[in-house]
Amino acid sequence: MAKILRINMNDLSYKWEEVPSKWETLAGRAFTSTIVSEEVDPKCHPLREKNKIVISPGLLAGTKAPSSGRLSVGAKSPLTEGIKEANAGGLTATKLGRLGIRGIVIEGMPKGNDWYSIIISKDKCEIKVTNEYAGLGLYDLTTKIWKDYPNKPGIIGCGIAGQRLSKAAGVFGNNIENTDPGRYAGRGGLGAVFGSKRIVTIITDDSEGKAPEPKDSDKFTESITKLREALRAHPVTGKLKDDKGKPFGGLANYGTNILQNIINEAGGLPTRGFKSGRFEGAAKISGEAVHEIVDKTREKFGDSAEGRYGHACHPACVMRCSNVVPYEDTGKHHVGPLEYETAWALGTNLGIDKLQDVAELNRLCNDLGLDTIETGNTIAMFMEAGVIDFGDGQAAIELLKKAYDEKSIEGRLVCSGTKSAGEALGVTRIPVVKGQALPAYDPRPIRGIGVTYATSTMGADHTSGYTIAAEILGVKGKVTDPRALDKAELSRAFQSTTAYIDSSGYCLFIAFCILDNDDGFAGMKGSVDAFLGKDIDVTEYGLAVLKKEREFNAKAGFTNADDRLPEFFYTEPLPPHNVTFDVTDEELDMVYKDL
Amino acid sequence: MAKILRINMNDLSYKWEEVPSKWETLAGRAFTSTIVSEEVDPKCHPLREKNKIVISPGLLAGTKAPSSGRLSVGAKSPLTEGIKEANAGGLTATKLGRLGIRGIVIEGMPKGNDWYSIIISKDKCEIKVTNEYAGLGLYDLTTKIWKDYPNKPGIIGCGIAGQRLSKAAGVFGNNIENTDPGRYAGRGGLGAVFGSKRIVTIITDDSEGKAPEPKDSDKFTESITKLREALRAHPVTGKLKDDKGKPFGGLANYGTNILQNIINEAGGLPTRGFKSGRFEGAAKISGEAVHEIVDKTREKFGDSAEGRYGHACHPACVMRCSNVVPYEDTGKHHVGPLEYETAWALGTNLGIDKLQDVAELNRLCNDLGLDTIETGNTIAMFMEAGVIDFGDGQAAIELLKKAYDEKSIEGRLVCSGTKSAGEALGVTRIPVVKGQALPAYDPRPIRGIGVTYATSTMGADHTSGYTIAAEILGVKGKVTDPRALDKAELSRAFQSTTAYIDSSGYCLFIAFCILDNDDGFAGMKGSVDAFLGKDIDVTEYGLAVLKKEREFNAKAGFTNADDRLPEFFYTEPLPPHNVTFDVTDEELDMVYKDL
Repeated sequence: MAKILRINMNDLSYKWEEVPSKWETLAGRAFTSTIVSEEVDPKCHPLREKNKIVISPGLLAGTKAPSSGRLSVGAKSPLTEGIKEANAGGLTATKLGRLGIRGIVIEGMPKGNDWYSIIISKDKCEIKVTNEYAGLGLYDLTTKIWKDYPNKPGIIGCGIAGQRLSKAAGVFGNNIENTDPGRYAGRGGLGAVFGSKRIVTIITDDSEGKAPEPKDSDKFTESITKLREALRAHPVTGKLKDDKGKPFGGLANYGTNILQNIINEAGGLPTRGFKSGRFEGAAKISGEAVHEIVDKTREKFGDSAEGRYGHACHPACVMRCSNVVPYEDTGKHHVGPLEYETAWALGTNLGIDKLQDVAELNRLCNDLGLDTIETGNTIAMFMEAGVIDFGDGQAAIELLKKAYDEKSIEGRLVCSGTKSAGEALGVTRIPVVKGQALPAYDPRPIRGIGVTYATSTMGADHTSGYTIAAEILGVKGKVTDPRALDKAELSRAFQSTTAYIDSSGYCLFIAFCILDNDDGFAGMKGSVDAFLGKDIDVTEYGLAVLKKEREFNAKAGFTNADDRLPEFFYTEPLPPHNVTFDVTDEELDMVYKDL
Repeated sequence: MAKILRINMNDLSYKWEEVPSKWETLAGRAFTSTIVSEEVDPKCHPLREKNKIVISPGLLAGTKAPSSGRLSVGAKSPLTEGIKEANAGGLTATKLGRLGIRGIVIEGMPKGNDWYSIIISKDKCEIKVTNEYAGLGLYDLTTKIWKDYPNKPGIIGCGIAGQRLSKAAGVFGNNIENTDPGRYAGRGGLGAVFGSKRIVTIITDDSEGKAPEPKDSDKFTESITKLREALRAHPVTGKLKDDKGKPFGGLANYGTNILQNIINEAGGLPTRGFKSGRFEGAAKISGEAVHEIVDKTREKFGDSAEGRYGHACHPACVMRCSNVVPYEDTGKHHVGPLEYETAWALGTNLGIDKLQDVAELNRLCNDLGLDTIETGNTIAMFMEAGVIDFGDGQAAIELLKKAYDEKSIEGRLVCSGTKSAGEALGVTRIPVVKGQALPAYDPRPIRGIGVTYATSTMGADHTSGYTIAAEILGVKGKVTDPRALDKAELSRAFQSTTAYIDSSGYCLFIAFCILDNDDGFAGMKGSVDAFLGKDIDVTEYGLAVLKKEREFNAKAGFTNADDRLPEFFYTEPLPPHNVTFDVTDEELDMVYKDL
């Protein structure tokens, strides 16, 4: 039986609880959002004692289901002041799954100035003072922890930014075969919630764990096989070769950053603070550019080259969209992964086209414990205000490095989120919804993603309803007109399916394959059903999660006035298509109507 | 007939409009809140083209009614993101009244980087490029303008802080007999709205104006005489002497800062970031201390001494609560006025007990164009975060001086409001409601003012429903228990009467006398009725204003979740009485129930 680990930081106690039958089908986002909505006062201060951190591996984490090792982290967000779920790959979900832990609920706040870590292994939990882990860069911290705990445990936690309660702080996780702190449940400032509870890390050792047992093993095996085959066959998620044996497309070749050129082509790549939809430097920081530099340094440095593409983000991953960007001059590891959103936030949106500068900004975010999307948008505010210049990678790096200096007010501000920094600097073009910065798709030429940004329970978030799949990449060979204005239904469908996937433990990128391939869909649903021994309706399940999240937000004070994009998207046309975001308020309000 | 001056900053045009009959009875706050609620999109960005600035002299401004020269400034607030009215004394209201101008509505936003001033005289308006007025400290600016315009015009506008769109920027006004920029419609960041429209100043010359004519002159004269006598007879608003001829109590002797010792005694004086209700240094920065230093420097420096108490804030003022604090070593003018709220925000709440340090911080705020309450609370955030120490006046002065340096990020942050600064610095005890910082009365031991802070349409604001009058000072000799929890009705009564007074042009401090003395009340109401030739119900009029403001805020996205105090007031008991804010949510929601 799966268990819940409930930790009380007030008195540093913990207990194991059975999963109550009403929560039996809940895992991942469904689990975190349910507990947050049932147990956290929606009006509470997100960084004081009443908030809770809820952590849950996706339902199938620890099984052999392909790409099923996602970890959800939930709380009331200090950035949006609404409910938040952020998820990531890494090691911890798989290990928690193998320890039979459905979720961890962390309550309260300790007195005093000590910093803690929570050490979890089979049926054991220890809440330990680890002051030596606080204040470190995360590369040093994770290396130190793998020395202290030689079983190569999963690690999640917060860095310097979270320890200082900065609103752009994410929850980091370590990589699967090294200690890289590059796996981020990045959004919504959840790292600061860790910091507020004075928790630096949660260290999970599954040495004595084992894969969880599905209720219907035969059907489970059959289903995951079906899904795995569908994933392998799909051009986005499989690794295909063309007639001449050259690799083409595919996440394993170019990673998510394959989108850099695609979205640029579509004229929807937000450039220099959302001022254009085209970036002349896009190709230089694209997935193709990373691919090339990896190949080049491998050629040059042979076995000592550390650059990589086709890299997995968690043990069960079959899509392998992750990468490691090498230093060009040594071939050594610089940063990994460099995702599309990150290359956009720290490159395109800052007008920076030097791949090594973008990689360095990414490395600094990973080391400080910062969400790259939020931080990139924040640096753009400094550029918009004229503090530093668009395109000046070195100035951006110097600015971000100030965050290491506890006394630096610039350092604090650059970690405090786009809205706080933009407002402090007198900027009026602040690209946020519900306080959270927009990701890498401009909503003016691609309206469906704008509908998702506006209405998502999470604040501006592409992963919460990735209509780009339909509007740019196409589903079953058919592209939905990105400029059409009736996108409420599309966004709602993506948002609800996403809430289901975010609960299953599956990586969201299976969506490409399940949308295009009925066998893929059947494999996904079949595996979840077989695991639970139930017949779960994908849409109903997803909508139930969204409903709880909406209700929490309503009690926290959100209204439909919060389901809107910033004014400048309605008034400033975006080149090259010179369009504004023309979706009506009525259309936006339809997304959650009658839920 | 009174007129409306409507200015369009998009094309730098203006026109004169008749006051439509539906707005006939509206002036001051009733005028600004009506126009803002009817003409401004509640969801608009407060610092972009869709917001409007509405300026209106109180109804009786320019007449001989005692203490009737208040000016209202309204807009959507960049600090609260709700509706805002802030009012002040100074010269401009009287002059606008004498020019027959009921209100000024400023729309749009000019293109380009020029800075403008609006020059108003009898039936004339000029919108002028005045780049030489931008970027100056306000002492220099007002001196320069009185040289450029020798008729000693009224001046209002924004300083450096507003020009940079800082959220703590107030709208300054000049003093009556010198150019001191010490009259502030300070709250809600309205100075930044001026800055967003690139307006530095509005300069009003009433040389050819005349006092407006009441509809019923006899009744008007009779009523204002009645009110004047009641004001003179009241110990708070008159200047009385004891048996031995020594002055006692009274605003004219000690100014509003007489409250420093009174609220300290009551245990409700928020000290060092709302951590205690008693400040051991209160007496040193009290109104009595100012009185003493004025007397001392007069004795020492004779006619060249510039310190003052019993100073009027606008031409018709009879209460004279204003003052000028002299430099102790020269007797020269340091700052004026040093109000209670300011001495609290820049003294008590920062643990600073050196009067000259507090005066210097006040002078810097006046020079930069900053609201002292917001700025004091913001500096407290820097202290709470350990950037500078509580009690260190020189460090606070150095911090605030950084605001002169356009490139200083600390300088930007210290002007950006308590919430932005607190959040950027990782503080979780941030004393704001609806984004606006709390004034000088702790709501834990004095619950009625807490109800006003929580529920006011304006964000935390003592002037919007000053229950302190009943809870500490007493009405008709009877004090309402400050610790009682059923304060909804009391707060609502104060809030509605205030909305009426804020529209009449009368200074809010007539409230002491109209509450205690039926003749005072009759004089106030009679004068308004006689001026309009109507019978206006005080409560109905006030509630109608509040209703419009609430409706605007609801459309802007406010819910009852916004009508709450920050969490720490509910959980941290305040010494010396060791009480928390125990008013229920239901009680808070009763204030505006069925409005």
